[in-house]
Amino acid sequence: MITSTANPRVKELVLLGKKAKERKEQGVFLAEGKKMFEEAPKDWIRSLYVTESYLMEEGNQDGLLGTEYEILSDSVMKAVCNTQTPQGVLAVLTMPKWEFQEIAGRKDGCFLFLEDIQDPGNLGTMMRTAEAAGISAVILSSQTVDLYNPKTVRATMGSIYRIPCFMEQDFAGAVRRAKEEGTKIYAAHVSGGKMYDEPDYKTKCGFLIGNEGRGLSDNALALADECVRIPMEGSAESLNAAIAAAVLMYEANRQQRR
Amino acid sequence: MITSTANPRVKELVLLGKKAKERKEQGVFLAEGKKMFEEAPKDWIRSLYVTESYLMEEGNQDGLLGTEYEILSDSVMKAVCNTQTPQGVLAVLTMPKWEFQEIAGRKDGCFLFLEDIQDPGNLGTMMRTAEAAGISAVILSSQTVDLYNPKTVRATMGSIYRIPCFMEQDFAGAVRRAKEEGTKIYAAHVSGGKMYDEPDYKTKCGFLIGNEGRGLSDNALALADECVRIPMEGSAESLNAAIAAAVLMYEANRQQRR
Repeated sequence: MITSTANPRVKELVLLGKKAKERKEQGVFLAEGKKMFEEAPKDWIRSLYVTESYLMEEGNQDGLLGTEYEILSDSVMKAVCNTQTPQGVLAVLTMPKWEFQEIAGRKDGCFLFLEDIQDPGNLGTMMRTAEAAGISAVILSSQTVDLYNPKTVRATMGSIYRIPCFMEQDFAGAVRRAKEEGTKIYAAHVSGGKMYDEPDYKTKCGFLIGNEGRGLSDNALALADECVRIPMEGSAESLNAAIAAAVLMYEANRQQRR
Repeated sequence: MITSTANPRVKELVLLGKKAKERKEQGVFLAEGKKMFEEAPKDWIRSLYVTESYLMEEGNQDGLLGTEYEILSDSVMKAVCNTQTPQGVLAVLTMPKWEFQEIAGRKDGCFLFLEDIQDPGNLGTMMRTAEAAGISAVILSSQTVDLYNPKTVRATMGSIYRIPCFMEQDFAGAVRRAKEEGTKIYAAHVSGGKMYDEPDYKTKCGFLIGNEGRGLSDNALALADECVRIPMEGSAESLNAAIAAAVLMYEANRQQRR
């Protein structure tokens, strides 16, 4: 059992929780908690850490079968976890590699393009909603908060394992490639010319959502085939970015079900 | 200028930021930041605190015209604010008093009933979305996180000033009163019998949304006229509560626009 935060493996875990650069260099990220561990694809697991109390809880041993693990003391687990009351299990996982060109080239699909989202919880919530709404892939601009930030990972509630997500150095290029493959791009904008429920989303489409504070950049807006607006009653000026994305994705889902 | 956190007024501000009980007893809450101050109804302002740098910024003096204020040093402002980088203005506001019976008795309306929401940011986001979607009022169960928590206030982005919101000791009673006044109640539930976009929301209606972890209680479910489900693609098990509420509220908005 590791009982000291001075242990080199513990130091590395702390680093992986805090530094996007470190995660990127090693190609791994952290997943905390029982649900996140149990839903993780088994071949992504690089290493696993548990507490004694986690091992003693009924049923938890079964979930570990065949996976090697290291035991951490409660205080060490707390030091490496990002949550106030850790559930006693922490996995180091390999980052997935998805192929955007392949997904963009399919006959159908609905994509979510996120430009410079800054809040880790917002990004995780958008991934979670994207899976539930049946989105094919999520594409992130390079200035978006790190997808593998522990807060983001947790907020995805496991969707990070299942929905292809791409961090694109050339965000505009990715939007253009999707367009070349027949995707119609709709930008969410408060002064959009059409209501968001007017266009036909039953064919291949993509939604462009901008940063929480500034919205979409002019460059991104220029890439859109159409700007759509979500109606604002009262004196509300805008919606939270994750809410705006959800309203659009579920409108596409609603149309596709009919 | 107040420069010490030992000042009794500063101590009281800290208390008002931290303790729901203190806010309730005094009937006041805190609003931080320029937007929240400028949008606040002028007759709600009980007292106002600014920093010297806030006063010096162009245009800010104009916004203060006629309002008495006290100057706080930057470090004192930081100590009383809940944000990492305070904007230099903090208002103490009187809690509004709305009359639920009057609103519930109107001919039309769409209500949001929230049971035991725990995350302050989620609650604030729901208030913000409710205003934008044209909801008439939001009703909170007594176990819901405090509406006047500074994080919630901030996340409402000003909607807290405009959308009537009620904390009900007798939540079930409030739902029943709304029903007696002709409101049809729809509960969001993963195993609801109807898709959320099937019912007609063009007449008086209300949505019941449950706690982030456990969903709606059996008691609350029993009050619903109908349970509706939002489709879940992939392996997603649920949506974030604020997202589920948004999808329902904007479906009602969409139908009412047609």
